[in-house]
Amino acid sequence: MQDYEYMQLAVDAAQQAQWRPWKNPRVGAVIVKDDHILAVGYHHQYGDVHAEIDAYQQVADKQQLVGATIYVTLEPCAHTGKQPSCATQMLAWGLQRVVVGQIDPNPLVTKHGVERLRAAGVQVDIWPIPVSEAINPAFHYFFTHQLPYVTLKVAQSLNGKITAASNEATKITSAVVDEDSHTLRAYQQAIIIGSTTALVDQPSLAVRHVHTQHQPLRVIIDRRGRLVNSAAVTQDNTLIITENADFATQAEQVSYLKVVTPQTILHLLGQRGIQAVLVEGGSELHAAFVQAHAYQEIIVYQTTGLLPNTGVSSFGTADSMTDLGKIKNVKVIDNTLKVTIKREEA
Amino acid sequence: MQDYEYMQLAVDAAQQAQWRPWKNPRVGAVIVKDDHILAVGYHHQYGDVHAEIDAYQQVADKQQLVGATIYVTLEPCAHTGKQPSCATQMLAWGLQRVVVGQIDPNPLVTKHGVERLRAAGVQVDIWPIPVSEAINPAFHYFFTHQLPYVTLKVAQSLNGKITAASNEATKITSAVVDEDSHTLRAYQQAIIIGSTTALVDQPSLAVRHVHTQHQPLRVIIDRRGRLVNSAAVTQDNTLIITENADFATQAEQVSYLKVVTPQTILHLLGQRGIQAVLVEGGSELHAAFVQAHAYQEIIVYQTTGLLPNTGVSSFGTADSMTDLGKIKNVKVIDNTLKVTIKREEA
Repeated sequence: MQDYEYMQLAVDAAQQAQWRPWKNPRVGAVIVKDDHILAVGYHHQYGDVHAEIDAYQQVADKQQLVGATIYVTLEPCAHTGKQPSCATQMLAWGLQRVVVGQIDPNPLVTKHGVERLRAAGVQVDIWPIPVSEAINPAFHYFFTHQLPYVTLKVAQSLNGKITAASNEATKITSAVVDEDSHTLRAYQQAIIIGSTTALVDQPSLAVRHVHTQHQPLRVIIDRRGRLVNSAAVTQDNTLIITENADFATQAEQVSYLKVVTPQTILHLLGQRGIQAVLVEGGSELHAAFVQAHAYQEIIVYQTTGLLPNTGVSSFGTADSMTDLGKIKNVKVIDNTLKVTIKREEA
Repeated sequence: MQDYEYMQLAVDAAQQAQWRPWKNPRVGAVIVKDDHILAVGYHHQYGDVHAEIDAYQQVADKQQLVGATIYVTLEPCAHTGKQPSCATQMLAWGLQRVVVGQIDPNPLVTKHGVERLRAAGVQVDIWPIPVSEAINPAFHYFFTHQLPYVTLKVAQSLNGKITAASNEATKITSAVVDEDSHTLRAYQQAIIIGSTTALVDQPSLAVRHVHTQHQPLRVIIDRRGRLVNSAAVTQDNTLIITENADFATQAEQVSYLKVVTPQTILHLLGQRGIQAVLVEGGSELHAAFVQAHAYQEIIVYQTTGLLPNTGVSSFGTADSMTDLGKIKNVKVIDNTLKVTIKREEA
């Protein structure tokens, strides 16, 4: 097998973790000696051992590691976090070569892992095409821009309606599709909704149907302070963002911003270390994020049903002929389209 | 090779003709002897020889046909039409066996082709699963129901709008997508639009970009007679259907119906031998066909663009939560979704 085949194996291993590493990147590692695979590992879950260590632990005879090569999708860490630094641990294994899929964008790590290994005489090759970014778009985006990676999620009828009438919640998608959208939620650290959605739907925004140890933060955008006397103010794991200074003094989880825009919202969430956010609407909130170009991805669940002409259209008062981006993926789940669109930088 | 592999070859051959056979069915034929393929033929174009004859003409030494088997997707014809009857011609070839993909639904042919061959001592096997219907849905539908097979075509923005404002035409799809939709037109014998679309868009409804010898009939639904003084009244290859009796007396191509509904329209077109019609809108005409369950298929071209909330939504005043059917196919053409939905019988 060739280098690129081993690296592909490592990528496949990384993706097995799905949403479970949460704020940590999905990472895979393959240990190879004399063209034989000794172990395939990955970072299973937030708080668990890193991919390199997971692979290492599977090698019964540690003597075999002497002179071996490890393929790892992301630079081995160089800082002591929840686990001891991988780069330091790896020095003791007697590896001959480390093939790194991509340099870690986290400034605590960037190039330190590679340098530590090289300083100890290990051959380190950096993969020419970044490998980790495709597996961990939010992780890389966050550490590059200090802002969350934004996904807009829309569930609509075939004729583009999100509810049958304003101030009325309409159940559009099936249970099977809901499960898919809860998986999407499980990848996020925050979910943003507007105050109308909060008042009309009263959604819990919790991840259900799939098992996760981390519920995303509920973020409600409430410029005027319509939620003053609502239950949302006292709910756990909730952040309300408002321009109403009086409201902001009433509860700890209400944050004041002088001007609430997609940019100021994302800046605030970025400061709190939130890497991935899902904007679940309503219609006007989606339109605001589109108009501000404040998104990386849009996921549309679209049924084959029709809702009345008088219903609320998706993307509210968006500009005419705005183009949302490039179609990256289309799936059919339970007779519902799932379309993934990526924004293209102008 | 097995029977089903030869039949699959015949199906593939049939489909090569695409729209060119027009009102004729697409048919393919494979001649086999001693497990060797002697010829593969198909009906290339309306007016050309039938598939069996096309295959026959490719066999240089006609002696080889003695004792051969022919696989043909549709029953050989038994009536003298534009060509002499295939069944009669085939009797002279010395075939041992004829494998027929499906009985012809056209009452001029039904079972007569098979009977003629069997009466002459040729072994005829009818394929257990109908083969031709999937290749020629409109042809089979028409001869089974004496009504046209109806496809609704919609081009819409991601938020379900067909124009930016009422009484205004908006160009939604790209030239590449237009080419695809002209191919779709080429399969039809008629295209139906409403009077508003006729007045606002003034579409020629002609097949462009693809070569065809048969332009579909332009059918304009104009219940009240709004087109009385319009150019449409004198245009070639046009049929205007109206409830306005005075209007109907003014020109030969204006037809009067006491009550214009999708059913009465389709009945009239069926009487004229039209097998396949495309309903191109507008919004209210599509809604009427949906509400009357008067369609077999819907094709939605959907861009990644947005149009203003104030634009016209597709499917006008359709009922709430109407389900249009099952998604049969999804393609991405030039960053535009093409979704094919088939209506399910209740």
